[in-house]
Amino acid sequence: MKIIIDCLGGDNSPKANVEAALLALRKHSDLSVVLTGDETEIKKIIEARGMGLDRIEIVHAPDVITGDDKPTDAIRLKKDSSMMKAIRLLRENDDMEALVSTGATGALVASTILRIGRIEGVRRPAFCPVIPNMKGGVVGICDSGANPMVTPDILLQFAIMGSRYMEAVYKIKNPRVGLLNIGTEAEKGDDLRREAYKLLSENKEICFAGNMEARELLSGDYDLVVCDGFSGNVLVKSVEGTALQLMKKIKGDIYSKKKYKLGALFMKKMFEEEKEFMNYQNYGGSVMLGAEKTIVKGHGSSDRKAVLKCIDQAYRMVKIGLNKKTAESIRKSMPEE
Amino acid sequence: MKIIIDCLGGDNSPKANVEAALLALRKHSDLSVVLTGDETEIKKIIEARGMGLDRIEIVHAPDVITGDDKPTDAIRLKKDSSMMKAIRLLRENDDMEALVSTGATGALVASTILRIGRIEGVRRPAFCPVIPNMKGGVVGICDSGANPMVTPDILLQFAIMGSRYMEAVYKIKNPRVGLLNIGTEAEKGDDLRREAYKLLSENKEICFAGNMEARELLSGDYDLVVCDGFSGNVLVKSVEGTALQLMKKIKGDIYSKKKYKLGALFMKKMFEEEKEFMNYQNYGGSVMLGAEKTIVKGHGSSDRKAVLKCIDQAYRMVKIGLNKKTAESIRKSMPEE
Repeated sequence: MKIIIDCLGGDNSPKANVEAALLALRKHSDLSVVLTGDETEIKKIIEARGMGLDRIEIVHAPDVITGDDKPTDAIRLKKDSSMMKAIRLLRENDDMEALVSTGATGALVASTILRIGRIEGVRRPAFCPVIPNMKGGVVGICDSGANPMVTPDILLQFAIMGSRYMEAVYKIKNPRVGLLNIGTEAEKGDDLRREAYKLLSENKEICFAGNMEARELLSGDYDLVVCDGFSGNVLVKSVEGTALQLMKKIKGDIYSKKKYKLGALFMKKMFEEEKEFMNYQNYGGSVMLGAEKTIVKGHGSSDRKAVLKCIDQAYRMVKIGLNKKTAESIRKSMPEE
Repeated sequence: MKIIIDCLGGDNSPKANVEAALLALRKHSDLSVVLTGDETEIKKIIEARGMGLDRIEIVHAPDVITGDDKPTDAIRLKKDSSMMKAIRLLRENDDMEALVSTGATGALVASTILRIGRIEGVRRPAFCPVIPNMKGGVVGICDSGANPMVTPDILLQFAIMGSRYMEAVYKIKNPRVGLLNIGTEAEKGDDLRREAYKLLSENKEICFAGNMEARELLSGDYDLVVCDGFSGNVLVKSVEGTALQLMKKIKGDIYSKKKYKLGALFMKKMFEEEKEFMNYQNYGGSVMLGAEKTIVKGHGSSDRKAVLKCIDQAYRMVKIGLNKKTAESIRKSMPEE
């Protein structure tokens, strides 16, 4: 199996990305990697680890796409960037099955949509991050930004793609799918939601658990939430923002009084665990579901361990034949001609 | 000034509502109240406080609308409910200027839209809750559920109505308005957002601060966020859900080890303050902006103090002539004929 690793664009790139690739090679004997980035730098990191170039290809790509680049411009103009070279390699080589990147999300999502084919029958690839719930499990959010505008049948496809994904990667049997809505009753929301509710209820490839209000996201009652990319983006970012802001506030308050600081000493380990619990990196990368090739996006702040997790995730998705399973499920759900 | 108080439907109704009304009467000498609910019960509470019926009208309405009632059914069938009687009184009596309720949100929003007129020029009333930000201030979210589907000019009206409201009630000068979007650049989002961005940028009645991503809601950089009712609802509920779930988790973790429990003893006051900080009740009720009459919705769990806050808020909105200011602002923003 050959996985491309975009070695630029993350906060800890290229070091974390290259070192993670080396660890992945050691872990999976049937794996080869293609590293895109500054060739000299990449080689230096590999040498520093005392490793050779066995099962490693390096494709020189000195330019980097940042969050400040407008995605469509970046795709058009930054052809020598590590991400665009990686996308081109993925597109043009049948034996390269997956891509792992910690670079700019917008550019990765846009270039997947514009440059990479879709699984047969899939109308739109969707971006699906996974976040921890309060019962020690996780919940996937599909779509969380790739498709601001959708139709009911596209939402159904998100449910199918997401279900197969949660089964394959997080080993959840019959993932409970919630439809993000502004109330739980079947008739709630706009026409899009009402029609989607009907389609989801009738489909046999998924386990539909009804409408889900945003406040229930972390409850552990749902394994996957389907939504248009606009409200999905709002959902993910507000959970993230609230958790971060709240922990920041608590931290600030602790430092405001000696007594609190003293108390916090006893709870140091607990707060560290909370922080670790909320660290998205621990739950793997976000994936572009529905694309013909496997694409995993690690958080920009990913360290070596987190990038390795993303590579493992991509490896697993390819190994298990997720795309084939998804295609099969989508095919079964298509209206008979 | 005459304010109607719906005395049923809250967790602490009718006691909290009636007692709050009595406190409001003591506070504002020019205020009269109309109480809807079970007459015998209401009278009993007033007597228990040793008060007479001066400046108090009681309208008997024994039935209650709950969160389980489908709003449109409730409006049609529960005509004897305290909320529907209150809405009818508000509609039919020119001297009754405001309504405060702690009852079912859906029914109150729907009945405002169906039964109460709009301020001249306003296309859609919007539901606007206010939540605390991390800099000790507040941020309003307009709309957060009344209008799942909107147009760019309706979003502009939300910005105008919300701005006048944040000025009048929270005394914020030139409230900074953010447009909820999935990125900060002007061209982000769908057609609705791009067109709204343009309208908001050009309008002179508001202080537009650009697109706002959901994670910035609590940052303190925005005083008002405008959005369609669908994503606004997702936003408010996910902030609420995340904060509650996170505090619950921390509480659970504290109880998991003796050492943590000990540490928490030193921090008891701090945690109480966090809880108080996150208590929506402390920031006033949510309002239906754009309605011809003033309508304030207190949280279902409102205690006497919280209901009093809602009455004060309604009193202030009427006193300051918010609806007139809003009409004026809307008029100035209308395209010239």
